[in-house]
Amino acid sequence: MDEKQQLNLFAAEPAGPPAVRAVPVPVPAAPAPAAAGGNGGNGNGRRKVPAHLTAEDMGAQQREISVTEFFTKNRHLLGFDNPSKALLTTVKEAVDNSLDAAEEAGILPDIRVDIKPLAEQAERLGTNGKAADNGDPNAPQRFVVTVTDNGPGVIRTQVPKVFGKLLYGSKFHRLRQSRGQQGIGISAAGMYGQLTTGYATEIISRPGKGKPAHRFEIFINTQKNSPDILSDDVVEWPNESGVAIKITLEARYQRGGHSVEEYLRNCAVANPHARFVYSSPEGEETVFERATEDLPVQPREIKPHPYGVELGMLIKMLKSTQCTKLRAFLASDFSRVSPALASEICDQAGISQNAWVSRISREEADKLYQAIPKVKLRRPPTDCLAPIGEAAIEAGLRKEFPADFFAAVTREPSVYRGNPFLVEAGIAYGGTLAGDEPVRVIRFANRVPLLYQQSACAVTKAVVQAPWRNYGVQQSKESLPVGPLVVFVHFASVWVPFTSESKEAVAHYPEILKELRLALQECGRKLGIHISRRRREADAEKKKSYIEMYLPHVSIALREILGLSEPQEKQTFEKLVRILERSRKP
Amino acid sequence: MDEKQQLNLFAAEPAGPPAVRAVPVPVPAAPAPAAAGGNGGNGNGRRKVPAHLTAEDMGAQQREISVTEFFTKNRHLLGFDNPSKALLTTVKEAVDNSLDAAEEAGILPDIRVDIKPLAEQAERLGTNGKAADNGDPNAPQRFVVTVTDNGPGVIRTQVPKVFGKLLYGSKFHRLRQSRGQQGIGISAAGMYGQLTTGYATEIISRPGKGKPAHRFEIFINTQKNSPDILSDDVVEWPNESGVAIKITLEARYQRGGHSVEEYLRNCAVANPHARFVYSSPEGEETVFERATEDLPVQPREIKPHPYGVELGMLIKMLKSTQCTKLRAFLASDFSRVSPALASEICDQAGISQNAWVSRISREEADKLYQAIPKVKLRRPPTDCLAPIGEAAIEAGLRKEFPADFFAAVTREPSVYRGNPFLVEAGIAYGGTLAGDEPVRVIRFANRVPLLYQQSACAVTKAVVQAPWRNYGVQQSKESLPVGPLVVFVHFASVWVPFTSESKEAVAHYPEILKELRLALQECGRKLGIHISRRRREADAEKKKSYIEMYLPHVSIALREILGLSEPQEKQTFEKLVRILERSRKP
Repeated sequence: MDEKQQLNLFAAEPAGPPAVRAVPVPVPAAPAPAAAGGNGGNGNGRRKVPAHLTAEDMGAQQREISVTEFFTKNRHLLGFDNPSKALLTTVKEAVDNSLDAAEEAGILPDIRVDIKPLAEQAERLGTNGKAADNGDPNAPQRFVVTVTDNGPGVIRTQVPKVFGKLLYGSKFHRLRQSRGQQGIGISAAGMYGQLTTGYATEIISRPGKGKPAHRFEIFINTQKNSPDILSDDVVEWPNESGVAIKITLEARYQRGGHSVEEYLRNCAVANPHARFVYSSPEGEETVFERATEDLPVQPREIKPHPYGVELGMLIKMLKSTQCTKLRAFLASDFSRVSPALASEICDQAGISQNAWVSRISREEADKLYQAIPKVKLRRPPTDCLAPIGEAAIEAGLRKEFPADFFAAVTREPSVYRGNPFLVEAGIAYGGTLAGDEPVRVIRFANRVPLLYQQSACAVTKAVVQAPWRNYGVQQSKESLPVGPLVVFVHFASVWVPFTSESKEAVAHYPEILKELRLALQECGRKLGIHISRRRREADAEKKKSYIEMYLPHVSIALREILGLSEPQEKQTFEKLVRILERSRKP
Repeated sequence: MDEKQQLNLFAAEPAGPPAVRAVPVPVPAAPAPAAAGGNGGNGNGRRKVPAHLTAEDMGAQQREISVTEFFTKNRHLLGFDNPSKALLTTVKEAVDNSLDAAEEAGILPDIRVDIKPLAEQAERLGTNGKAADNGDPNAPQRFVVTVTDNGPGVIRTQVPKVFGKLLYGSKFHRLRQSRGQQGIGISAAGMYGQLTTGYATEIISRPGKGKPAHRFEIFINTQKNSPDILSDDVVEWPNESGVAIKITLEARYQRGGHSVEEYLRNCAVANPHARFVYSSPEGEETVFERATEDLPVQPREIKPHPYGVELGMLIKMLKSTQCTKLRAFLASDFSRVSPALASEICDQAGISQNAWVSRISREEADKLYQAIPKVKLRRPPTDCLAPIGEAAIEAGLRKEFPADFFAAVTREPSVYRGNPFLVEAGIAYGGTLAGDEPVRVIRFANRVPLLYQQSACAVTKAVVQAPWRNYGVQQSKESLPVGPLVVFVHFASVWVPFTSESKEAVAHYPEILKELRLALQECGRKLGIHISRRRREADAEKKKSYIEMYLPHVSIALREILGLSEPQEKQTFEKLVRILERSRKP
């Protein structure tokens, strides 16, 4: 083989292997590209591509891809991988938005979820277009999902964008606990409906009492990632304020573990201040009443903490700050940096405190970045988090599970990669819960139930690792414990580190695993005390019933053997009871 | 609790539960929102959010999120979850692009990958900004990755967008096998470098012999998802044509399973027409020579097949077609639809063949969609695929693995969800491969090695399910076989169904699993014949060596016992050899 080599082209880089002289690589004679046929670059799949392309040919084919086209092709990234998950994801995105909005507006959420088969379904003869599926009873059907809330509504000018444009929203840029993070979910659900059934998303919104209610029909223009508004009318609407959204989609309806009902039940546990009404495709109506009239405390937005900021982010912040001098920038744009600490960072970096922010070079920014970890800073503030609280968790569990012991723990906030987070755990035990199955783990992130990918989640790992046998619950090694037990875990953070975009499992950061473990152990110890007390009580109960059963016979026997009178017998009997009762109580 | 209920608002929907009269839900008196402080909506984290918001307050906060900001926060979706993976992903994205471009231009690829520690590294005192990591020897370092190719180059006007804008490219919209799919990878790698080190991406491009070479320095503007060009100069460059890209990033360098070297070795196996030179951070240089001078046949772009088109896509195609009549549209915009079949689809749907495309309603489109599966169509054409070929796979394996038996199989193309695909398998066995470990499975999708998430991949599942014991290879139930064996699998398709955006594992479609199994079984049978023949040969060899060892002694003994002369002894000896040799060969 030949020895031709290419140069390392950016020879400015130091060291490296000895530079090799470049000898051009021989290129097999490429046939001249055929004249590119006709309507160049409209990419409709109709143009013949010449056998070999030049850089110019390729340049003519390069074009922008809209984020909507991207997520249409990659819908599994958003939780639309299959028809049953699509149904749940659609409900979830709408409910998350309703809860977030109502809470921000200080309204106790009241949310109704309706799922109905599409009427025309009955006339439907074909299948979903997959040739192989002809006549498959499990083939997806078309459903109409309607979610109605009593929140603050969305103002008319924003409705089309909020519901008809991906990556649009208010939650992405702020450091503050909320259910939604990205500004994708609900628009993606509408897009999925449009793709699978061709129906537009319908929205009614009334942004407050006395204001008109608007009804929109919206398509998402997937080429432009923008809403196409089909209709926009003022309508009669009985609700004082709020949003109703209706999406028609191809889906599969199921009961049990990954069902909408299960999702709403878990939602009700983690959001005891919210009321949910669910009307299933079969027409059954389930009401999840609220367990408390207290709204959770609203979390506050915080500034980024220096320990969690990467160099590129620091450079970006330097460019966009409104401060002019370095020290002021550090003290005003970050959490936990006082003017004195800002001076310390500047000194460590060897840069003047009065340096103009606009003149900081990459190298100086890098020095600042290196200096930050050397200055001791307090942990980030934690009022950006909104824990559910021990009482509310217990109330939520008590409402939804027929157990006889409940306990809950809210841990102090902690930090991973500069992001504040907090863990809460709860337990429901005994009662009529099934005792011979692995415990049920219900997981929540920022109050949203996580239904998929249980085994990939840090929460499950922590449950498996907790020492349940110490608390009187059966457990084989490396498995979930077995018993009449429901384990509730809530992870709250300004940024939940999901393992994938469909938000199904929390990543295994060591700091997070540690807090999860501690929370579970606290609950576990309470459970252990309860179980051992109950065992003692059961023993005592047994002794007592023996006493009650046998003592009358003993005293009759005593009377007959010793010839006691009735009062004597009664006295002896009472004495015996006293003595035995005393011995029964340790 | 009260009985208040909300209406199902889109009462137009048929059936459903009995409509309940709406009683407005009582809303706790929300305190009037505090005057939103100052610079409304610039979202810099500096504005105090009032305790309770109205729809107007929220509207003021809603804004567009750039796709770059989205992927910066969600970089794990693109394979940048940790520093060692970031290094590999960066090399992979650059190499994928180089291979795709060279092949399209009909050039035998010659690619050089250089990884060097950043010079300033030596002076670096701090860590990566995680306070807890101080002094961690495993803390990531800064590296300079340079990838240089001899491809067709990129024309000057396109360079900034191709390398400095996410979701920009030529491959997303066409149905044709290629390594890249999304137009994200290389820009994301540059963005990661910029974020972690603050350095710009550098690119040199010469779009053909005799043309000037341009050198760019580019930052990605994450707010706008557009390139900021720092410099654009004509430079001296020894190469005739091609691209060199340099990215400086924070990363962790490792050897072994998930290393860059392993990746390039696998690349060389699946791309035997390409030559790779790798210069490691330690300065070692490895050359992977090409095993063939034949370029793979270029795959052709195809039109979508009707069986794989969803209703929403059909409606979109109806809107954007250049045909005016329905029958012409069906016959010209799809694969495998002749005018006669187009008529059949129209008849099935009960729509006139001459209906104006622009007037097709949603309902009519739906009827078309339902009619399609009822018309029998041929499978999609398969010249959109570019198999590696049995000879090239064998040559690639022979070059990289010290085995003594090689076999390869290229299956006929098949179809999943309307997408053509094809499976190839190869085997290297024996020689000096380690015999007491699980076999090594090397997986490829569209000629790109897959290094992560082996256990989640359909390929691994198929290898585990193949009946290796039938072929003479050890295997426990539900595990990889054990032996001196390398299993190569290539999955090629116009659209590879990856389980996640970081392109690490192929999804478990039944059609795909079946083809994988059949390909492995074909290879396995060849291996089985080889192993049993070799066993027979080994037995024969053993017998022969016994004959050679013992027969002289036997004949000496015979001479002494029977008093034979030397010629008699020789004769007897030769006869014995003949008889025994005959018995040795069955």
